[in-house]
Amino acid sequence: MEREIFDKKYRKRLEKLSTTNLSDALDKIGIRGAVIGIRPLFGLPKVVGSAVTIKITAAGMAKSKHHLGIEAIASAHQGDLIVIDNRGDTQNNCWGEILTCAAKMKGVSGVIIDGAARDVDMCDEMGFPVFSRGVVPITARGRIMQEDFNCLIRLGDVQVRPDDILVGDINGIVVIPPERLDDVLFEAEKIMEKEELMKKDILSGFDILEVDKKYNYEQMLKK
Amino acid sequence: MEREIFDKKYRKRLEKLSTTNLSDALDKIGIRGAVIGIRPLFGLPKVVGSAVTIKITAAGMAKSKHHLGIEAIASAHQGDLIVIDNRGDTQNNCWGEILTCAAKMKGVSGVIIDGAARDVDMCDEMGFPVFSRGVVPITARGRIMQEDFNCLIRLGDVQVRPDDILVGDINGIVVIPPERLDDVLFEAEKIMEKEELMKKDILSGFDILEVDKKYNYEQMLKK
Amino acid sequence: MEREIFDKKYRKRLEKLSTTNLSDALDKIGIRGAVIGIRPLFGLPKVVGSAVTIKITAAGMAKSKHHLGIEAIASAHQGDLIVIDNRGDTQNNCWGEILTCAAKMKGVSGVIIDGAARDVDMCDEMGFPVFSRGVVPITARGRIMQEDFNCLIRLGDVQVRPDDILVGDINGIVVIPPERLDDVLFEAEKIMEKEELMKKDILSGFDILEVDKKYNYEQMLKK
Repeated sequence: MEREIFDKKYRKRLEKLSTTNLSDALDKIGIRGAVIGIRPLFGLPKVVGSAVTIKITAAGMAKSKHHLGIEAIASAHQGDLIVIDNRGDTQNNCWGEILTCAAKMKGVSGVIIDGAARDVDMCDEMGFPVFSRGVVPITARGRIMQEDFNCLIRLGDVQVRPDDILVGDINGIVVIPPERLDDVLFEAEKIMEKEELMKKDILSGFDILEVDKKYNYEQMLKK
Repeated sequence: MEREIFDKKYRKRLEKLSTTNLSDALDKIGIRGAVIGIRPLFGLPKVVGSAVTIKITAAGMAKSKHHLGIEAIASAHQGDLIVIDNRGDTQNNCWGEILTCAAKMKGVSGVIIDGAARDVDMCDEMGFPVFSRGVVPITARGRIMQEDFNCLIRLGDVQVRPDDILVGDINGIVVIPPERLDDVLFEAEKIMEKEELMKKDILSGFDILEVDKKYNYEQMLKK
Repeated sequence: MEREIFDKKYRKRLEKLSTTNLSDALDKIGIRGAVIGIRPLFGLPKVVGSAVTIKITAAGMAKSKHHLGIEAIASAHQGDLIVIDNRGDTQNNCWGEILTCAAKMKGVSGVIIDGAARDVDMCDEMGFPVFSRGVVPITARGRIMQEDFNCLIRLGDVQVRPDDILVGDINGIVVIPPERLDDVLFEAEKIMEKEELMKKDILSGFDILEVDKKYNYEQMLKK
């Protein structure tokens, strides 16, 4: 999807939704899109963007031309998200201070790592959200390397293609195929509105049993 | 135990004690009551209350009448704690925004989950403490369901009956049988007082070796 | 190393470096020194100090003379770090309120535990940094005991001798042999300076691909 169209038509709508609303919408439509266990390392970030993907492999005799992340950042546009597949490895670092500095200059929204990060305090200081499974102080150099970038990857059980839309917040990560974005937003906004009405009723003093019956909460995801 | 008696006689005393004081008292009396690995998801909460329990099972052909939590909240009293047994599963959500909203309206003190939660930011915003083993964005609907409520459950290695007294803070969770509450409080308060005296001595400049000898720290839990 | 010499010659230089800079320097020199998975339990601490080590074993018929930590604290000097080896066990507590109080009075910089801690809120309140793998409310008494102190221990995959220099921050822990401290500092400071120049170039608008080539980022750890 064109970045301009995305920013104009979709970004603000996505920013209003939580990953839980979006996860429910993906469920209703039947798309596997929620990732478990990749968490923000600090604060209450909300990130939305198109994926620029990186695939990591072990270092060895075959070499990378550039340090991991360099080409991905160079190819990224304002508002994109860097998304790194290191197969959940929490023993090796995939992201640090210099990459954060460069990504921040490009206007990248954040980084989402199926693995670990380092220089977390610097990232926090630069206001650059990092989502990962862990933190290590050890360099990637000589341990892991970039196998490819802007290629098909996976985060946990979820497939991620370059330009898939990712949303991250304190509750986790969801991956949305751009070709289904309209449907997902339609359902997620319906869910958010229904939940707002339910909360309003509960806060007005209606009993949770009545509210449950009125809105049919358990069956909310049925078509 | 009657809620009024509990609130009048016991609540304030429990609020002054840490889960570590209470865990030591349970040890001294010989009751298994401390739960490992269920942590607060934000802040430095202190929760005290009678358990309203929920037992979770996998979704399937057998159906629940209500979405999980609805009946437990409807049956809860001011100051109670919702306590959910999902066998430590960190892949499925047991608690979210709507339930928080309803529980908050009932004056429930918090939720303690042997499993995962979602809508964590909303819970934080509503000032509703959540203790769990993890966070996921994915809905419970179609994945897990309530098998029973106000029934016997377990948290980690600890048995929890409806109306057992639970205390949670940054150090973890303890479960106290109401029939032993007087004994546990008596021992916990002695431990807290002894520790206060030890701290006072240390802060006055006494050497830790002298203080250790004077208070017999290692043997403190012996009768 | 003499504490006075260390404090005069090295402490400030170490405080300016992150554990990531130091980990890279250790890599370059070929020393295994970074520990994975032992994290600060609160805040953004920075600790630097000589190790006073403690080795934990299971409680049983053989007894310790003192509660764990007592002798280590009594033998510690201003600025030292207490370092506890409980083999990564997250089911048993190795550190709490009374020890924190005594360590604080001695001017100990913090505690680093390959295992779990308790009374975390009190440690935070007293401004005493705790690094560990987890938190439990349960006492050490009757469960684990001190086998030895100021002896050889390990943290994860890294060996720690008494008087080894440890540095801890939000990114993790590094262990530096005092006999190589000059070399490690020399390399770490070069790395920090090079990274500062790289960040300056990036923030001046140079493309990450050019900066990568200019500073040869991927090969930075080669001699």
